[in-house]
Amino acid sequence: MKPVGLEPIIWSDEGFFLLDQRILPNQEVLVKITNIEDCYAGIKDMVVRGAPCIGFTAILGLGQWLNQNPDKSFADFEKICDYLKQARPTAVNLAYEVDRCLLMVREKVQSGKLGDIGAAIIRFGQQEIVAAGEKNLQMAKFAADDLAEKYGDKKLKLQTHCNTGILACGTLGTALGVISHLNSIGRVESVWVDETRPYLQGSRLSSYELLKENIDHKIVVEGAASHLMSKGLVDAIFVGADRIALNGDTANKVGTSNLAVLAHHYNVPFYVVAPLSSFDSSAPSGEHIEIELRDEDEILKYKDHYIAHKDASAYNPSFDITDGKLITGIICEKKLMKGYYQNQIKELFN
Amino acid sequence: MKPVGLEPIIWSDEGFFLLDQRILPNQEVLVKITNIEDCYAGIKDMVVRGAPCIGFTAILGLGQWLNQNPDKSFADFEKICDYLKQARPTAVNLAYEVDRCLLMVREKVQSGKLGDIGAAIIRFGQQEIVAAGEKNLQMAKFAADDLAEKYGDKKLKLQTHCNTGILACGTLGTALGVISHLNSIGRVESVWVDETRPYLQGSRLSSYELLKENIDHKIVVEGAASHLMSKGLVDAIFVGADRIALNGDTANKVGTSNLAVLAHHYNVPFYVVAPLSSFDSSAPSGEHIEIELRDEDEILKYKDHYIAHKDASAYNPSFDITDGKLITGIICEKKLMKGYYQNQIKELFN
Repeated sequence: MKPVGLEPIIWSDEGFFLLDQRILPNQEVLVKITNIEDCYAGIKDMVVRGAPCIGFTAILGLGQWLNQNPDKSFADFEKICDYLKQARPTAVNLAYEVDRCLLMVREKVQSGKLGDIGAAIIRFGQQEIVAAGEKNLQMAKFAADDLAEKYGDKKLKLQTHCNTGILACGTLGTALGVISHLNSIGRVESVWVDETRPYLQGSRLSSYELLKENIDHKIVVEGAASHLMSKGLVDAIFVGADRIALNGDTANKVGTSNLAVLAHHYNVPFYVVAPLSSFDSSAPSGEHIEIELRDEDEILKYKDHYIAHKDASAYNPSFDITDGKLITGIICEKKLMKGYYQNQIKELFN
Repeated sequence: MKPVGLEPIIWSDEGFFLLDQRILPNQEVLVKITNIEDCYAGIKDMVVRGAPCIGFTAILGLGQWLNQNPDKSFADFEKICDYLKQARPTAVNLAYEVDRCLLMVREKVQSGKLGDIGAAIIRFGQQEIVAAGEKNLQMAKFAADDLAEKYGDKKLKLQTHCNTGILACGTLGTALGVISHLNSIGRVESVWVDETRPYLQGSRLSSYELLKENIDHKIVVEGAASHLMSKGLVDAIFVGADRIALNGDTANKVGTSNLAVLAHHYNVPFYVVAPLSSFDSSAPSGEHIEIELRDEDEILKYKDHYIAHKDASAYNPSFDITDGKLITGIICEKKLMKGYYQNQIKELFN
């Protein structure tokens, strides 16, 4: 059970709240969502972040609107759905979940008033979070079993990159979920948390989650990875994934591929943990995945303060591609895969 | 010729000045050194930094004091030397250069007044800077020749880590000196500058130097290295060294070893550039070099602002050890070494 103060999305008798992730970790403020405009702003202004969390927030926001507007029509609901999708137009997960709600409502309400369908949509949102948590736990168990084969019940020194925990996923999480689960069964000695430049998700978010769970950890700069591995201070590495190609090549936060090359060099097990929805059967390999370039100011400035000279420029690829051949294991809710990934990943879609 | 505004130490008809490196890159302020207390403060408060620069500053500061105090005794000078050494008690270079001045003055002035010896000490300081520059240029030429064998006169995409240029060395510099020299002979297409967490010497200082020299470059986070090399965007990497063991193992700013492992994986030439004084014949290998741990606040905060939660902790090794076997070439002013380093490094001391 996650401690109070960590859930990014709260639906309770007191109302619908989002934990304001913009001001974490040193301020813990819940933003109350009282109407669809609040929900839109919460997503757009990144009070809530992480693809799964954005999707869950949208479902609950639509449920709340339906509760408040039983006398409106399906056409009105369609407009609200279009509006909400615009909160982050490039977030695939947002559009996906909104469309699922639209379909559910359409099936039940073809004409006339919307009625009392809001409760069903809210229940659907809650079930989605629970289901995601169950999948995350399954992945974590696969990871725990695989580590037990290598290390027995030894307490492990783990490393992770970026943020892949409850703040991003709304529930246990992927790579950080594995660490949380391993800790719950007494298998974690300590965790190295990459600060994850430039956006510092490790320092700001992953460390905050581990603090809340009382898991021993230290933040390190990305440059320290070779030092740590060379000294035998890392037993296994867990990272998430934004997209996984058919051959196992994995797009994830920039710096992930560095870790994989280093892990391979030092013979440290390196695992990718991601749900089925992250596998892209249309991409034969990593070469088919485009790398998003983000604003150079993420590197050149800290908040509004220039780190570099104001005339300097930076190159800021947000992701990198980890060569599937460097990955010890890829874990999804169906299975843990090792070795030659091509056929195993294809089978996931059968 | 380096452009005006880049020299960290200026001795001219207008006086003795230090470029205030604490507020670079967005403010260029010269601090006037008018007496030995100013010199002490400039070193202690890190207006000037980098082992060679600290040494040069001390020599010129002592020369200035001698100019101002021809009627004092050698015993007075000894006290001044002891005082100046305390500005940064652990800086080996500072004590080394102060002791050399002490020896020179002792040889000429045994008793009575110090007289007009200040001019000779100042001349010594200036000669030391010139001599260091000549050594740096020799190293750069070795590097240029080696790259020409592999790449001909192709314009190259280079990468570097931390700051090893004129701001640290008072003259051309080591790894950044190579890049500056290669640019002067038309061999540089562009440079990737690691921001170099946690202290950001790349963003703040190396990028500033390259801007001043109009060398095309972009700052990148350390995590981007694998991405860049995998895309063929790096032709060679140059780094400096804090200490080099007999077998070629090299202690340098944390993150250097990451780069070397990645360069080896992607078959990118990786060079260490350092003067003879950086070789430590008492260390058979990197295991004999202690790694300094620095304050975790360098990672947890940006200036006075908490990045991580105030209860979070960090692990901050300042250096790492690069395995000599991963280094394509080690360059000092005597030669460029490749392959099995043990005997070649021993020969340097003969």
